[in-house]
Amino acid sequence: MNSDTSVITLDHGGGGLASQRLVSRLLGLLENSSGQKENTLEDAAALTVPGLTGRLVFSTDSYVVEPIFFPGGDIGKLAVHGTINDLAMRGATPLCLSLAMILEEGFPLAELERITKSISEASRDAAVPIITGDTKVVPKGKADKIFITTAGIGLVDTAVNIGAAGAKPGDAVLISGSIGDHGITIMSQRAGIALQGDLQSDTVALHRLVARLISEFPGAIHVLRDPTRGGVATSLHELAAASGVAVELNEESLPINPAVLSACALLGLDPLWLANEGKCLLFCDGGKAAAILAAMRAMDEGRQAEIIGRVVPAAAAQVTLRTVLGGGRILRSLHGQPLPRIC
Amino acid sequence: MNSDTSVITLDHGGGGLASQRLVSRLLGLLENSSGQKENTLEDAAALTVPGLTGRLVFSTDSYVVEPIFFPGGDIGKLAVHGTINDLAMRGATPLCLSLAMILEEGFPLAELERITKSISEASRDAAVPIITGDTKVVPKGKADKIFITTAGIGLVDTAVNIGAAGAKPGDAVLISGSIGDHGITIMSQRAGIALQGDLQSDTVALHRLVARLISEFPGAIHVLRDPTRGGVATSLHELAAASGVAVELNEESLPINPAVLSACALLGLDPLWLANEGKCLLFCDGGKAAAILAAMRAMDEGRQAEIIGRVVPAAAAQVTLRTVLGGGRILRSLHGQPLPRIC
Repeated sequence: MNSDTSVITLDHGGGGLASQRLVSRLLGLLENSSGQKENTLEDAAALTVPGLTGRLVFSTDSYVVEPIFFPGGDIGKLAVHGTINDLAMRGATPLCLSLAMILEEGFPLAELERITKSISEASRDAAVPIITGDTKVVPKGKADKIFITTAGIGLVDTAVNIGAAGAKPGDAVLISGSIGDHGITIMSQRAGIALQGDLQSDTVALHRLVARLISEFPGAIHVLRDPTRGGVATSLHELAAASGVAVELNEESLPINPAVLSACALLGLDPLWLANEGKCLLFCDGGKAAAILAAMRAMDEGRQAEIIGRVVPAAAAQVTLRTVLGGGRILRSLHGQPLPRIC
Repeated sequence: MNSDTSVITLDHGGGGLASQRLVSRLLGLLENSSGQKENTLEDAAALTVPGLTGRLVFSTDSYVVEPIFFPGGDIGKLAVHGTINDLAMRGATPLCLSLAMILEEGFPLAELERITKSISEASRDAAVPIITGDTKVVPKGKADKIFITTAGIGLVDTAVNIGAAGAKPGDAVLISGSIGDHGITIMSQRAGIALQGDLQSDTVALHRLVARLISEFPGAIHVLRDPTRGGVATSLHELAAASGVAVELNEESLPINPAVLSACALLGLDPLWLANEGKCLLFCDGGKAAAILAAMRAMDEGRQAEIIGRVVPAAAAQVTLRTVLGGGRILRSLHGQPLPRIC
C-alpha cells in the first residue's frame, strides 16, 4: 500500500473504498456542473430529452485490462460488453456505442486487427452498433499497448424504475451465474499460473436477459448491478448503503465454478471480491424470486443463476455472510484492490 | 518516419493520411457491425430514436495532449470543448457529456483536482453537464500522467442538414477566427521555446455560435468542421473529397495572429496544418456569406472570422491556395503529423 496521500495510487482504481473516496472528491468538484446528484450512485446516468417518452441512459468506461488477450475474451470484447451491461443495469435497451482507442507506438497492427474483429463480433452479436469513434497514438512507453473507452446510449421506459436505492426489506437477492470467473482468469494469467480446468472470463452482454425479465416481471425488479471491480461483496455494500438496508448472503447458495474455487484457494483469494464481467446482481420482490430465477435459468446468460440472499431492515448498511456452518460473518468493504488492471 | 508497416506509428495518430488509412481499415472490419456508412465521414454520428422528433448526435474523443497544462487551457478544458464542438459541427445542441479518466500511479492529486476544476468550469460555462464518468488507474510507467476520453450526446432538428458531403460549387468558405493558435502553443511549450507575444491555445466551445448561425440562416449553412488534428488544410481536403468539389483559398484573407506567424517562421511550420481547438470552417451559400460573417464577428468566438475561399467545381477534389502574389499552389494532404499528442 502506498501511504503517500498526495498522489494517485493503484488503490484509487480498484473499485473499493479508495476508489469511492476519490470519485466522491472529484464529484464534489463537478457538482455544480452536473446538478444531477441522483445519478452519482449509478454506473449509468438517466436524462430526459424534450419530446421523448422514456429517458435516455448514458454510460462510459475505460478499459485498461492486462493482458489484453485472455481465455474467454480480450480488451475489445470487454469494452463492448461492459458498457452494454452498464446501460442494461438501469433497465435500458442499448441503442448504440462509441469507441475510442489510445494506442502505443509500436503496437502490432495484427493485434489491433484481432481486437477490432472481436469488437465487431461482440457488437454484432449484441445487435448494438458502434456508430462513432476516435483513435489516438502516443509514443512508445507512454501507454501500455492499447486502452479502450466505450460510451453507450440506451433508452428506458418511463414505467421502469430500477436503481441502486431501490432495495427493500423482504427483497430476494439473486445472481445471474457463477462468481469470480473474470477476476481469477486475469489474475492467473498475470501470475503465469497454468491452472487445470477451463478457467475463463465470463464476459458477456446481459441486455437480453434484463429485457426479458423486465418485460415478464413488470415492477418486480428493484435493483440491478453488475459486480465488476470490487466484486459481489463491494457491489452489495454500495447497494446496501444506497438503499439504507442490510443484506444477508447464504454462503452455500453462492454459485462458484470448481476451477475458480481451486484457483482462489491456491492464490489466497475470496471469490466474493473478484471481478465479474457477465453477471448481474438482482434484487426483487421476495414472492417473485422463484419465478424470476426460473426465467433467468432458461437463458444461456443465466443458466447458473441462484437466489443468494435477502434484504433485511437494519440500522447499519452491512452485508453479512451466513456460513455453511450456520455462523454469521460481516463482509468488509474492499479498500484497495487485489490486483490492478482487471478490466 | 517509421517504415515498419506492421506496427502502429505516431503517424497513425496525426490526423493526416496515415490516420485516415488506419481508420478506414478498422472501419472496414467494423462495417457489418454498424451498417451506418453515412456516418464514417463525420466526427459525430447521427441516430434516430423511436418517438423522438429530430435526431440524436453522438461523438467521442480521447485526449492525450502533452503538456497537460498549457497557456490558454489544459487537457480537461480541451476534452470538454472538443466533444461539444464535434456535436456542434453536426448542427446539434449538446445535451450532456460523459468523462472517463485513465490515471498513472503517482500522478499528483493536486494536479488532478486542478484539472477537475477546469473541467467543471468548462462544463458550467458551456451549460453542458457531465452526467456520468469512470476512473481507472494504471501502474507508474504504463500511461503518461492522465488521459481523458469524453463522449457527448446532442440533439439536432430534423430540418438541419449539415454534413461533410454538403459543399456545393458557389459556396463561400469561412473560418470563425485565427489559424494555428492551439498547435503552435503546444509545440512551443514542447520545444521549450519562450516566444514573445501572448501565444495561447484557442480552446473554446463553439455550440452557441453554431446555434445562432443555424437559427438566423436556416438552410444556408452546408458544412461545418472544426479543423483540429491536421489543421485547416487537412480538414478542407477531407471535406472536398466527401463533397466531390475543389476548394480555392485566398492566402491574404487567412486570419493568423502575428505571434503565430513569428513562431511558425521560427519553427519552420505552416499554420494551415496546425491544430485548432476553438475554430470552425463553415461552407455556406455564397450570397449569404457577408451576412453570416457579420453575425460571426458579433460573437466573441467569431470576432476574427473571415471569408477565406470558395468552392469550385472540379474533376479532382483538390485544395488550392491563391497566394498574395497571384499564383496558385496545390495544398498537399498531411501524411503524418508535425508532432504527436497535440490534443
